[in-house]
Amino acid sequence: MNKYLQTDPWCIIEEGFHVNKQLASESIFSLGNGHIGQRANFEEYYSGETMLGSYIAGIYYSERAERGNWKNGYSDTNDRIINAPNWTGISVRLNDDRLDLAEWDVQNFRRVLNMREGFLERTFEAISFKGHRIQVSVKRFLSMAETEVGAISYSVKSLNYEGRISFLPLIDGDVKNKYTNYDEQFWNVLQTKTQQDVSHLWAQTRRNDFHVCGALTYVLYKNNEQLNVNPTKIEKEKVAGFSVGTDVRIGDTVCLNKYVAIINSLNHPREELTERACTLARAAKNKGWNQLFEEHSAVWAGKWLQSDIIIDSDIAAQQAIRYSIFQLNQTYNGNDARLNISPKGFTGEKFAGATRWDTEAICIPFYLCTSPQNVSKNLLLYRFRHLPKAIQNAENLGFTNGAALFPVSTFNGGESHNEWELTFEEVHRNGIIAYAIYNYVRYTGDQNYLAEYGLKVLIGIARFWSQRVNISNEKKKFMILGVTGPNMYENNVNNNWFTNYIAVWCLKYTIESIEKVKKTNFRAFEEWSQSVQFSNDEIFLWKDIIENMYFPENKKLGIFLQQDGFLNKTLTPASEIPENQLPVNQHWTWDRILRSSVIKQADVVQGLYFFEENFDKETIRRNFDFYEPLTVHESSLSPCTHSIVASAVGDKQKAYDLYLRTARLDLDDYNNEVADGLHITSMAGTWLAIVQGFGGMRVIKDKLHFHPQIPEKWNAFAFNIMFRGNQLNIRVEKNRTIIHNIKGASIDLFVNDKQIHIATESQEEILN
Amino acid sequence: MNKYLQTDPWCIIEEGFHVNKQLASESIFSLGNGHIGQRANFEEYYSGETMLGSYIAGIYYSERAERGNWKNGYSDTNDRIINAPNWTGISVRLNDDRLDLAEWDVQNFRRVLNMREGFLERTFEAISFKGHRIQVSVKRFLSMAETEVGAISYSVKSLNYEGRISFLPLIDGDVKNKYTNYDEQFWNVLQTKTQQDVSHLWAQTRRNDFHVCGALTYVLYKNNEQLNVNPTKIEKEKVAGFSVGTDVRIGDTVCLNKYVAIINSLNHPREELTERACTLARAAKNKGWNQLFEEHSAVWAGKWLQSDIIIDSDIAAQQAIRYSIFQLNQTYNGNDARLNISPKGFTGEKFAGATRWDTEAICIPFYLCTSPQNVSKNLLLYRFRHLPKAIQNAENLGFTNGAALFPVSTFNGGESHNEWELTFEEVHRNGIIAYAIYNYVRYTGDQNYLAEYGLKVLIGIARFWSQRVNISNEKKKFMILGVTGPNMYENNVNNNWFTNYIAVWCLKYTIESIEKVKKTNFRAFEEWSQSVQFSNDEIFLWKDIIENMYFPENKKLGIFLQQDGFLNKTLTPASEIPENQLPVNQHWTWDRILRSSVIKQADVVQGLYFFEENFDKETIRRNFDFYEPLTVHESSLSPCTHSIVASAVGDKQKAYDLYLRTARLDLDDYNNEVADGLHITSMAGTWLAIVQGFGGMRVIKDKLHFHPQIPEKWNAFAFNIMFRGNQLNIRVEKNRTIIHNIKGASIDLFVNDKQIHIATESQEEILN
Repeated sequence: MNKYLQTDPWCIIEEGFHVNKQLASESIFSLGNGHIGQRANFEEYYSGETMLGSYIAGIYYSERAERGNWKNGYSDTNDRIINAPNWTGISVRLNDDRLDLAEWDVQNFRRVLNMREGFLERTFEAISFKGHRIQVSVKRFLSMAETEVGAISYSVKSLNYEGRISFLPLIDGDVKNKYTNYDEQFWNVLQTKTQQDVSHLWAQTRRNDFHVCGALTYVLYKNNEQLNVNPTKIEKEKVAGFSVGTDVRIGDTVCLNKYVAIINSLNHPREELTERACTLARAAKNKGWNQLFEEHSAVWAGKWLQSDIIIDSDIAAQQAIRYSIFQLNQTYNGNDARLNISPKGFTGEKFAGATRWDTEAICIPFYLCTSPQNVSKNLLLYRFRHLPKAIQNAENLGFTNGAALFPVSTFNGGESHNEWELTFEEVHRNGIIAYAIYNYVRYTGDQNYLAEYGLKVLIGIARFWSQRVNISNEKKKFMILGVTGPNMYENNVNNNWFTNYIAVWCLKYTIESIEKVKKTNFRAFEEWSQSVQFSNDEIFLWKDIIENMYFPENKKLGIFLQQDGFLNKTLTPASEIPENQLPVNQHWTWDRILRSSVIKQADVVQGLYFFEENFDKETIRRNFDFYEPLTVHESSLSPCTHSIVASAVGDKQKAYDLYLRTARLDLDDYNNEVADGLHITSMAGTWLAIVQGFGGMRVIKDKLHFHPQIPEKWNAFAFNIMFRGNQLNIRVEKNRTIIHNIKGASIDLFVNDKQIHIATESQEEILN
Repeated sequence: MNKYLQTDPWCIIEEGFHVNKQLASESIFSLGNGHIGQRANFEEYYSGETMLGSYIAGIYYSERAERGNWKNGYSDTNDRIINAPNWTGISVRLNDDRLDLAEWDVQNFRRVLNMREGFLERTFEAISFKGHRIQVSVKRFLSMAETEVGAISYSVKSLNYEGRISFLPLIDGDVKNKYTNYDEQFWNVLQTKTQQDVSHLWAQTRRNDFHVCGALTYVLYKNNEQLNVNPTKIEKEKVAGFSVGTDVRIGDTVCLNKYVAIINSLNHPREELTERACTLARAAKNKGWNQLFEEHSAVWAGKWLQSDIIIDSDIAAQQAIRYSIFQLNQTYNGNDARLNISPKGFTGEKFAGATRWDTEAICIPFYLCTSPQNVSKNLLLYRFRHLPKAIQNAENLGFTNGAALFPVSTFNGGESHNEWELTFEEVHRNGIIAYAIYNYVRYTGDQNYLAEYGLKVLIGIARFWSQRVNISNEKKKFMILGVTGPNMYENNVNNNWFTNYIAVWCLKYTIESIEKVKKTNFRAFEEWSQSVQFSNDEIFLWKDIIENMYFPENKKLGIFLQQDGFLNKTLTPASEIPENQLPVNQHWTWDRILRSSVIKQADVVQGLYFFEENFDKETIRRNFDFYEPLTVHESSLSPCTHSIVASAVGDKQKAYDLYLRTARLDLDDYNNEVADGLHITSMAGTWLAIVQGFGGMRVIKDKLHFHPQIPEKWNAFAFNIMFRGNQLNIRVEKNRTIIHNIKGASIDLFVNDKQIHIATESQEEILN
């Protein structure tokens, strides 16, 4: 744990410059707007340790896959997030002395991420080697209203300096990644050009030919008066911008407002990129800082109205849950089905910035509740659009007849990962993609989705499972051999209970869905049936598998087994692992992890969370009580899921303890890894731990259900959800729950299994 | 199968230029002398497909390990064989036209690898674009007598050309690898210098700073008369040599003899390298071609005397077994305990040119029988010298108390491989290294080896096993979880029978060895005991493990199980896999291989081969009959081992069929992969398939035993072995076996369990 930030209900605050935490701060103070993501790199030159993070949604690099340890079926290229040309740079000089917080003396440093309005602010005083002292204030935001626009206001007041102060607002195309492809040049800079008022840089990714153009313009002020000075134009091979300055006396303040437009070939014709970027930058400048910012913060106000959670009497918890909601909304805005959510969002290079099954397992439920329906629908359509590539992927692995295997890690539907134990074996992802369809339809009631899109995906997945099973020579049952379950601390196991269960569930759900569509929309069924060459015979095999699947269990203990042979391990509770060996993934070798009983996240618990309606509470409790103590929760998706299940089985203390592990994972840097980036997807889990966990929210047969309970430390908590046209606020207090039907028609719902009717725009109080 | 070579008892012959087979031929016609290895790359420029292979024993490159998919415990660098400066080049020009067999018309091409005398010869006619026709004859060898010297005689006769013929004998430091590190520069060329008579190139490997110096000199002849023409000196940044020529008329022959010395910093002080190389090259030239060649071929004559096998009435088999003996002797000469045998020897880049457990499993038995004792001893000392690194390796993986884990792949004792399923899990290698000590002591009777060296290695290995086991929570037995056995078509399995068995065997053998040394050499025992901080308590745990190890088996079928759960697979005989899917490792994805019942080499059979004296013949037969049909023998070590076991259980047909698969594996390119290099280590297996298989040779209680049987197709076969001071020739005919005690004292041995006494220098005939 590495606490160094202040608690505050609406802000993340760093008081004093924590040089050794700069990489962590760069992650924590990240900004984003779903289109651009930006780590909190300093605008001015900084010679200290830093990791540039300047990312554009949908822009990635296809590197040639390494051939060492090659396996048949691996993809030839790996796609990776890359640093886009850096739009943030503003070098600052006092005459020839360049401001550098690693070299200058820094005082009264304060950095604030304002979540309510969505901006980053930094103030400090700096003293040069010559003793020149300046007071600096920098504010920046990435517009949520105009997602191709960012703005920075950089203000310098002279405290004892007389002479020239210059700013160099730049766009820098000479960027590399730090970890992946550490010495690779991704970009061909096609053009740098600086006109009188606007400067742009146009670049193209090597290999996959994405085009990006960044344009910047600026206004210079002295003591709040706009200056019209002639800039020096900067037009280097890979850098474009201006150098502009003025003379100051003690007490003078100079301020440069930088307006940047960053557009790319996903959304604009290549040949118009430079013109459009320049036009957009000029328009931002003409609009002016205040209006630009108002439009931006108005979007945030709307987001908070839909998704805020209030925690009464626990500021650290309040701050943390808002931080989660804030970062999720910064990462994905739901307007573009070509985009998705990477585990680290746009805050680092880990996970290659690509999409994993986190989206379906944990993000979709968040967006379902807090955003208009089309946001989650776009997340589903992302996979639907990738179906042909998933079928191709399965074909490459030897499957036939339209079987689909979605990738472990992807940008465009192609597999972007090359570890056999995941690429080929972590196949439950297919099940989770099916489950997300189920979840979406269950929550929204959008039955059309199945007929239009969902069924095609489901049959690809069902066909995959029907080919992935084999019949055991010894037990004469269907088995699934050679898989890696959600607990990635086991690789290549046989009969992973979760995988076997979700496989069977997929087959059942596909059959149900086919029958539903057949009944309600026969024309759609017929069209679909033909387009995927569906034959009714397929269902016979599926039913055989459903009926004769093998599930590992231990009847004496009354538990399902993570996989065959799990009880051959020496079972050691996680609590017995010495502190200095945690997290084990940083201290133990892989074989030791694999052989030990240590669980990253318990597959069985994950399954019981997904399919809780199919199990009695005692069974869930027994399995939870057996597995949770063995679990180190080193997957960022683990504590939240286990917290929800703990709530469901009534283990309030465990539920709260686990909630704490997810809630401030990044802010308190539990695993000493926030420098690499934030755990964006796990933030959705934090939200779920409150809403599904403490709030006990479920959707059963088209109705909302709640089983509220409140952590002892809290006086009250309240959350907002959208449900089929209703906007609801649920406030849980010690002794009562108040549900406010803010918007929409009257609604019937259940609290602790009791039906409640709430009229439109009114509220009901239920005693706990 | 890709037959294109002629059969011949002593030569490998290619008639006609097989352009599409050039990569394969480069492997097959490789030369080596234990110090230098050289693929059959053409001397003259060749624009066609080629893979340079010019290797120096012990010289490798430490590349920075890729960080992608990193696991704790992986090594930071990977060591790989690299192309050394190429000593073979001789460009040939007719005026300005450069000879190039890819472009010129080629006729009467013939390439011969003469195994009896150890040289490569190539003759052909070539016609230029201008119609100039020449007849070329090239001969080269790498001296077995002076292993730092190579020589090439390049002769060109004009058939219709009048004008200048020039040769450019070169040493080229501008070399790269083809597959691994494909675009990496390994070498800093420190100096190129050309004096009047000798030219040298001095280079240093990047990172690990090996120094190599190659020097060349030459003699030019015209119609057998030595010419003294003034050469043009070539002294480029990375290439050194000469350009020298003369005018010819039709019928004239010009010939260049190139003498090369290649020395390195393993054997010479860095600062004297250039001088010594030049001196050595000059000395070779002064000695002259004939004497140099005579000394070289005399060494071969001696090798053949010790190790030749004669197969009567089957030329293809005769050729193949000699090829195996030839290549093994080219790869390793046993004079230097810093060197070892890589699976591909010096014939390609695969397996990184590093040492694997092939050496202990299969090469040591070959060298034990065919070479002086110190050759195998040096192979054992190689591992002994690496013990500190093996202990360090184990420590890196979390083991303590001097436990040792020898690397999967190594040059200098450090682990050079990074796949967790091998590096961390393919731990039976440790057992095989212990087994090699046992094998050596059993064969040679050199009991001192244990006290001096062996015991230290054994205890490191025993300590490893005692920490690698765990007690099953369920079965209350010792188990070994998470291993990859010799059948690498299973990864990360539990209770691999072979691994469990060899672990227990190691513990037993270590206890026995300790007791033996204690009894026979108490002072050595005490010194040893102290130096490894041995405590008698350790033995209690070892005995507990020995007594309570779990072994997977199926009593109904009467077989040991490859690993837990093996019978949950759908069992499909290898014979049912369609031809066009073989070898499966080139056609199936990894997950499909892992899930299938297909076996690369059967672990259980490997164990029964090693430890046959501990099992009755029926058990061996039952297991062999169960597993062999499931086995695709895609490990080059598989057919030989299985052939020996087939012989042992009396399955003559299977033994012969499997022998055929190993015998001409490379010459007939069974698996379509000889282009990558030869299967050097498997050649030792071919030899064993005859001597231990058909010859039934064993050493039991210090005595040689034979159980001869003869394949139906053969009239007779004969092999030579050295055994504790005796040199024996064993000739097996249809109805009798003749054993000739060529050298050494009289000897008692057993044929078909019957004791035979053979006086010195005499022979005995035994009816079969």
